Amino acid sequence: MKKIHFKDLKKYYGEDITIEGFVDKIRNLQYVQFVIVRDVTGEVQVTIEKNDENKELNEIVSNLTVESTVKIKGKLLENEKVKLNGMELIPTDIIVTSNSLDELPINYKDINSSSIDTRINYRFLDLRNKRNILMFKVQTCLINTMRNYVLDNNFIEIHTPKIIGTASESGSEVFKLDYFDNDAYLAQSPQFYKQMAMCSGFERVFEVAPTFRAENSNSYRHATDFTSFDIEMSYVDNLDDIMDFEENLLIAALSAVKEKYEEEIKDLFKVDITVPTKPFPRIKLEDLYKELEKKYGFKMDFNEVGDMNAEAEKLASKYIKEKYGHEFVFITDFSAKKRAFYHKRENKIPIGADLIWKGCEITTLALREHRYEILKKQALEKGLDKDVKFYLEFFKYGCPPHGGFGLGVDRLTMLLLETGSLKETMFIFRGPNRLEP
Amino acid sequence: MKKIHFKDLKKYYGEDITIEGFVDKIRNLQYVQFVIVRDVTGEVQVTIEKNDENKELNEIVSNLTVESTVKIKGKLLENEKVKLNGMELIPTDIIVTSNSLDELPINYKDINSSSIDTRINYRFLDLRNKRNILMFKVQTCLINTMRNYVLDNNFIEIHTPKIIGTASESGSEVFKLDYFDNDAYLAQSPQFYKQMAMCSGFERVFEVAPTFRAENSNSYRHATDFTSFDIEMSYVDNLDDIMDFEENLLIAALSAVKEKYEEEIKDLFKVDITVPTKPFPRIKLEDLYKELEKKYGFKMDFNEVGDMNAEAEKLASKYIKEKYGHEFVFITDFSAKKRAFYHKRENKIPIGADLIWKGCEITTLALREHRYEILKKQALEKGLDKDVKFYLEFFKYGCPPHGGFGLGVDRLTMLLLETGSLKETMFIFRGPNRLEP
Repeated sequence: MKKIHFKDLKKYYGEDITIEGFVDKIRNLQYVQFVIVRDVTGEVQVTIEKNDENKELNEIVSNLTVESTVKIKGKLLENEKVKLNGMELIPTDIIVTSNSLDELPINYKDINSSSIDTRINYRFLDLRNKRNILMFKVQTCLINTMRNYVLDNNFIEIHTPKIIGTASESGSEVFKLDYFDNDAYLAQSPQFYKQMAMCSGFERVFEVAPTFRAENSNSYRHATDFTSFDIEMSYVDNLDDIMDFEENLLIAALSAVKEKYEEEIKDLFKVDITVPTKPFPRIKLEDLYKELEKKYGFKMDFNEVGDMNAEAEKLASKYIKEKYGHEFVFITDFSAKKRAFYHKRENKIPIGADLIWKGCEITTLALREHRYEILKKQALEKGLDKDVKFYLEFFKYGCPPHGGFGLGVDRLTMLLLETGSLKETMFIFRGPNRLEP
Repeated sequence: MKKIHFKDLKKYYGEDITIEGFVDKIRNLQYVQFVIVRDVTGEVQVTIEKNDENKELNEIVSNLTVESTVKIKGKLLENEKVKLNGMELIPTDIIVTSNSLDELPINYKDINSSSIDTRINYRFLDLRNKRNILMFKVQTCLINTMRNYVLDNNFIEIHTPKIIGTASESGSEVFKLDYFDNDAYLAQSPQFYKQMAMCSGFERVFEVAPTFRAENSNSYRHATDFTSFDIEMSYVDNLDDIMDFEENLLIAALSAVKEKYEEEIKDLFKVDITVPTKPFPRIKLEDLYKELEKKYGFKMDFNEVGDMNAEAEKLASKYIKEKYGHEFVFITDFSAKKRAFYHKRENKIPIGADLIWKGCEITTLALREHRYEILKKQALEKGLDKDVKFYLEFFKYGCPPHGGFGLGVDRLTMLLLETGSLKETMFIFRGPNRLEP
C-alpha cells in the first residue's frame, strides 16, 4: 500500500482512506475529540464525536499521547469550517503504532526554548521541527541539482578512501586511528585522489563525501566531520574556466531551490533566495585589502597578510554587496605562503581563488601544478616532500593540466537558509566537544 | 574553450580544431610520424609527414614519450585508409603539456602482466586501462540511477556522522581513533542515524557514503573502507514492501547500465547484463538448507546454522539459477541469534532477508523494531543495552514502523562486471594489509 502524503489529501474527498503519521495535537472536549496528525508533508484534523458508537475510538484518543504514531482509517470530508486546510477525517479505526512518553525533554516546536546544545542532545526530537525538516529537503534539492549538473557535464563519480596511510596535504589537523596496529589517518579532503583520477585520464570527476578536520575550533562554521562536494577537471588552463563552472553550478542549484521551496523558505526561515547573476565579482586580494581599509578602516593582521580571515570575509561581502549588489565574490591572488603547495603559480602567485558568500568562504578553487618537477619543488619548499611522496609519483607519467574545487555542503546550506551556525544546519553536528548523539 | 570529446570528432571533418589527450602510441617511420592520442572517450591518429615544413613538429614528436599529455592544433580529415576510425589530424601545432618518464613501472594495458597488488601500487597507471575507466563510468550510472529512483520516491538525503562516540551496533570490528584525547570510533554503517531520521519524521531517507569495518579479512569481497547505499523508509509493515522496493531499484539501475553500456561491457568485460524479472525468488533459510543438502550434499556447519556463509551463498545462487533461471534470490527467516538486535521479529524470527546476487550477498534488509520496550529487551539479550543507550532514546517519543537496507556499491559493481574481487573494482582498495596509495 502506498502511503498517502497529507499534502495530496484533497484528491481523496469523500473516500475511505488510511493515513499514517505522528500525533501533533490532541484536544479532548466535552462532545468531541480532535487529533491533529502530521506527516512529512503536512497536517490533517481527525474528528471524533463523543458518542456510544465511537466508544472505542474515544477511549483510544483519551489514552493517546502527543508524538505517538498512528494509523487511522476513515472517510475524508471537505469541511470549510475546519481551520486546518478545510478538511477532516472521520475515523472508523485508530491503531496506535507507537507510544510517546507523555513529557518531552524539549519543546521542539519552539527552537528558541532550548539552547542549541540541548537541542543537539535531543536532535531526534529537534529535527521534528518543520523548519528543520525543510532544511534537509532543501539540501537534498541543492546537492542533487549540483550532482546532476556535473553528471550532465560528463563527470565520473569516484569514491576515494577516507582512511589513508600518511597525514595528507599539510600534515596538521588530521585524526589518527589505529589500523590493525599501524597508524592511519582520516582524509582531510579527497584532493590527492581526485588529482590521481586526473593522472589516470578520468578527465572530470566528482565526489560528495565526508571529510575530516581535527581543528580544535568552536566557531559557527567549523565542524570536524562534514560533507564536501568536490570536483576536479582536466584540460583547463585558466582559472576563469573553473570560476565560470562554479558559477553555473551554483546558479543551477539555487535556481532549483528557489523554484521548489521559495515560499516555504520565506515562511519558515524568513529568507529570500536570490539567484546570483553572472559573472560573480572577482577581485584581487591586494585590491580588496585597499578597499576594505579605505571603506572600513580594516587592516589585515601582519601574520595573515596574503590570506583572508573571518573578519575580512565579512567585510568583503559587505563591500561587494554595497558596490555591486552581489552576494558572491571570488577573491584571487593569495600569497603562495598561505596556499597549498599543489596550487599552480604564475609569477609566484597561486592561480586560485576563494569564493565568499554572505561573509563566509565556501570554496577554495585553483589550478593545480601538474608538472612533476615543479610540484616536487613546491612540496619541498613547504617541507612536505616526504609526506606526499606517494602523491608526487602520480605525476611522473604524464598528467593533463587540471583544476577544481571543494564546496562545503553544510556551509552552503547554512548560508542559504541563514541559520547562523553549522550546529543548526548539520544533521548531527560534530565538533571538538561534540561526539554525540 | 570546450574540450572536444574524441568520440564526437566526426562532427569536425575539414575543420581546424584543437585536441587534448594522452599520447597512446608513437610510430616514427622513415617518411612519416604517427601519434595516437587518447582521451576518456576514444582515440585519434595524428599524422605528421617528415619534411622541411614540419621540421619543428617532427622534432617534438621525436622527443615525445608515450603517456605524455599533448595539446594539438590541426585540421581533421576523413581518411578511410586510416584504420583507427577512418580519420586523421594533420597538425600545425603540438604542445607537450606534461612529460611522461620513458619507462612505465607496469604495462597497464595488459592487466594480466602484473599482480593485482602491483597494479594497486600503481593504481594511477592501472586506471588508465580502458576497462577500468569503463568500470567507473558504469558505477556512476548505476549509483546515479539508484539515487534518482529514491529521489523520485520522495526520499530525503542525509549525511550522518562517521565519527561516533560509542562503538556502534555490535561492539566489534570498529576502528578506534583519537578524538581530542577521547576515544571515538568510525561508523560501521549509518544504521542508527538513518533510524533516527525515522524517529524525526523524515519518513524516507537515503545516504551514499563510506562505511568502515575493522574486519581482518582478506577475502575477495571484504574491504575496510567501502561505499554503502543506504535507505530507510517509514510506514512499512511488511517485508515484501521493502523487497519489492529493492527489486524496482535494482531493475532501474541495471536497465540504465544495459541501455548505456551494454556493448562496451560485452567488449571489455565479456559480460552480458541481464535485467532481472520481478519478483525475485524468495526462499526461507530452512527450506534453502534442505534444497542445498538434497541437490549438492551441502550441510551448514553447526556453528553457522541459522545463517549463511560464502559457500552457502554460492550454492544458493547455483540452485536458484538452475530452478528459476534467476540471478537474484532473497533469503528470509534467519535465526535471531545471527541477526542484529534491532530487526523486528515475528514468532521470534527476524523479519528480514539477505539478497544474494551471483553467489554473493549484497544487501541485508529488514523491518526494524520501532517499539522502545521491545527494542530495549532485544538489545539487552545481546548484551548491548549500555552501548546503544543513546540509540534507544530515539524511540521513547514515538516512531513510525519502518525498515530499510544497505547495499554495498563496490560489491554491486564487482558482481555486475564480474571482476572477481573488490581489489579490482574499488577506486583504491583498502584492506588489512592495504593502506596505500
